[in-house]
Amino acid sequence: MKRILLTGFDPFGGEQSNPSWEVVRRLDGLLIGDSHQIVSARLPCEFVNSLLILDVALRQHQPAIVICLGQAGGRADISLERIAINVDDARMSDNAGAQPVDVPVVSGGPAAYFSSLPIKAIAQELHLSGIPASISQTAGTFVCNHVFYGLMHMASSMDSIQRAGFIHIPYLPEQAVAHTGAASMPLEMLKTAVLKVLESVLKTDKDLRIAGGATH
Amino acid sequence: MKRILLTGFDPFGGEQSNPSWEVVRRLDGLLIGDSHQIVSARLPCEFVNSLLILDVALRQHQPAIVICLGQAGGRADISLERIAINVDDARMSDNAGAQPVDVPVVSGGPAAYFSSLPIKAIAQELHLSGIPASISQTAGTFVCNHVFYGLMHMASSMDSIQRAGFIHIPYLPEQAVAHTGAASMPLEMLKTAVLKVLESVLKTDKDLRIAGGATH
Amino acid sequence: MKRILLTGFDPFGGEQSNPSWEVVRRLDGLLIGDSHQIVSARLPCEFVNSLLILDVALRQHQPAIVICLGQAGGRADISLERIAINVDDARMSDNAGAQPVDVPVVSGGPAAYFSSLPIKAIAQELHLSGIPASISQTAGTFVCNHVFYGLMHMASSMDSIQRAGFIHIPYLPEQAVAHTGAASMPLEMLKTAVLKVLESVLKTDKDLRIAGGATH
Amino acid sequence: MKRILLTGFDPFGGEQSNPSWEVVRRLDGLLIGDSHQIVSARLPCEFVNSLLILDVALRQHQPAIVICLGQAGGRADISLERIAINVDDARMSDNAGAQPVDVPVVSGGPAAYFSSLPIKAIAQELHLSGIPASISQTAGTFVCNHVFYGLMHMASSMDSIQRAGFIHIPYLPEQAVAHTGAASMPLEMLKTAVLKVLESVLKTDKDLRIAGGATH
Repeated sequence: MKRILLTGFDPFGGEQSNPSWEVVRRLDGLLIGDSHQIVSARLPCEFVNSLLILDVALRQHQPAIVICLGQAGGRADISLERIAINVDDARMSDNAGAQPVDVPVVSGGPAAYFSSLPIKAIAQELHLSGIPASISQTAGTFVCNHVFYGLMHMASSMDSIQRAGFIHIPYLPEQAVAHTGAASMPLEMLKTAVLKVLESVLKTDKDLRIAGGATH
Repeated sequence: MKRILLTGFDPFGGEQSNPSWEVVRRLDGLLIGDSHQIVSARLPCEFVNSLLILDVALRQHQPAIVICLGQAGGRADISLERIAINVDDARMSDNAGAQPVDVPVVSGGPAAYFSSLPIKAIAQELHLSGIPASISQTAGTFVCNHVFYGLMHMASSMDSIQRAGFIHIPYLPEQAVAHTGAASMPLEMLKTAVLKVLESVLKTDKDLRIAGGATH
Repeated sequence: MKRILLTGFDPFGGEQSNPSWEVVRRLDGLLIGDSHQIVSARLPCEFVNSLLILDVALRQHQPAIVICLGQAGGRADISLERIAINVDDARMSDNAGAQPVDVPVVSGGPAAYFSSLPIKAIAQELHLSGIPASISQTAGTFVCNHVFYGLMHMASSMDSIQRAGFIHIPYLPEQAVAHTGAASMPLEMLKTAVLKVLESVLKTDKDLRIAGGATH
Repeated sequence: MKRILLTGFDPFGGEQSNPSWEVVRRLDGLLIGDSHQIVSARLPCEFVNSLLILDVALRQHQPAIVICLGQAGGRADISLERIAINVDDARMSDNAGAQPVDVPVVSGGPAAYFSSLPIKAIAQELHLSGIPASISQTAGTFVCNHVFYGLMHMASSMDSIQRAGFIHIPYLPEQAVAHTGAASMPLEMLKTAVLKVLESVLKTDKDLRIAGGATH
């Protein structure tokens, strides 16, 4: 049985919950087809510790597929991140009080890593399931991008990992209540979305070529 | 048994469905408590015929409560309209090909009507249920505002109507798929929201005073 | 010589300046053609005192035309307000510490007043001058709408006033510096815009019928 | 005399002008201090030819500093791009009819290049001058990012180039007239902004560390 590692984050920025952990914890242990099983891990919203814990989880579970999820408060759809960049630039402190500015995630690492998820095929799969989704050209420069970059860096030297990437998800509706006018997505739809993502990852050898870019 | 009239619209603007009709048609006939029953009516997205059909429904069902619903593509929450204004100003044609510009809804009518729904109490009820909602200061100048104004004008001379108003709702997720980055709300949540709205209307005598305005 | 009364507001919400007063104070005393002269007045950003001072200015100057201006932080263009509504609903305190919620501007007054400025002709004039402008369907429910409603209410009983209305303008660039990503308009362009507005008001007898509405 | 190469683009996407070319052509030949002179070049909005022409300009002028500018319709401020990524993914055709999807800018090139402009010092300089500006984490995946990546790739093997990067600028006001509600910046302010950028580049040895990131 191959492992699929899903990670979600602790709440941050004054929130009581984080939709990324709420969704992945409900999928922990689930079998996908007869060949893969989900393992869910919780990451702190901290620059340093998030990657230490991700590293432990990667070594422990030796997953074939890794998808880290994070909250993108204000975005309205499933946001398939294209690229992780080698910089931390925090506008607020992480949960440990750290606020790195213009520091590389990995000193001496490449400027960026592209996701190895088939993001265009995933977007199409989600659309066919009636779930709003789009390609994102930036995962920001906070802990989400940090984890995404760190994941891709570690994955680049772990042959067991076939696919790895990062997905941002909207607020839960109960969070959006406190942010007037903010978009949200219910937990049930998020769960369905993640399962559709995995279905697409498992059945896609070569990603589709469908336009999903941004003019600027 | 008192009647609650809910109305939804036909699709417009190239959409295949309209969330307002999708939700209210699923509530048709439902009993609310042991005193009220929902009647659902479908309005064409046409300036002239929408009000003719609403007028027939009001006379036929003699409702105690009337809530018209409409799609607000791009808005992210349940949008409780505060006021209907006496002007049609259409940026696109309605479904009958009409595009009135700067014409009153009712010639000689007052400049505006306020909703008689307890919109602040409703917002609070929705928030407590984990459903994003906010007060809107404008229902636009297209068919939605036209129906809202027409409803309030007719209600002003029908003693049987105790509460009347208009609520805008977001795209359904399957619609948002075609509008990259647009917010949406699933049908189940919309149904729950409308039921919570009715619950709040029935139990509220005097609206709450909770800030819900806009700076501009 | 007929008078044109322009008003601007004090800074509020933590700002150091208010573009509305910055622009109108620079136009004070200016002759428009050989028949009209501008008088500029500064209003406090306070529910009660703003209308007291506006009332004094109207009696003192007996203007033929009155345009009140206000800051709409975040809007990107010259925002020609269509309608003032009879409600105060403040999300924050005014400069005197008052925060009215769901209180009428004028008890017993009509639900709303439409602007008597030729807003469509003005929009066209500004566009031809290369200045972004649009019709706004709501002036909010804070002090700006309060002054707009109060102005139209007073004007309704003053025969000397031929045209009256309200215009929202963006942040100045130096204000937008503190609001990452916010739109702005430089003072010179704002001055040009106000002069174009007046030119349009003076030459327009009957407003144009050009679509300028909102779908919702 | 050292050269500063500034580039702007042809209009695209149905526009009649491109603010990037409008501003840089007005600065062509200008002396900056007594050591540098601006040379301005116009690039076609075409994936293939833009880099061919940039390559010629780099060889011809041997600039010490290169800043490419492009239009970001809808953005409100001077947008200092942090990173160029090695992918073209066009949602619309370029001016030559090409629409590459998920093709690298430079086959075998690194995933990304960071700007070598002191973007934080520039942002501070602009803010002190009252000009809205911010750091952008993505230049998109259209011709602007293509040119930015190509520039950084060429610069990486040209020792004469000390600083290179890309800046997105808003619509001109006369363009924004056709895009209701879109932000804009007048040409005079854009010129001042570019001169302030150059002033900052010339006087900054080591970039400042000021937070300028994005949470997602």
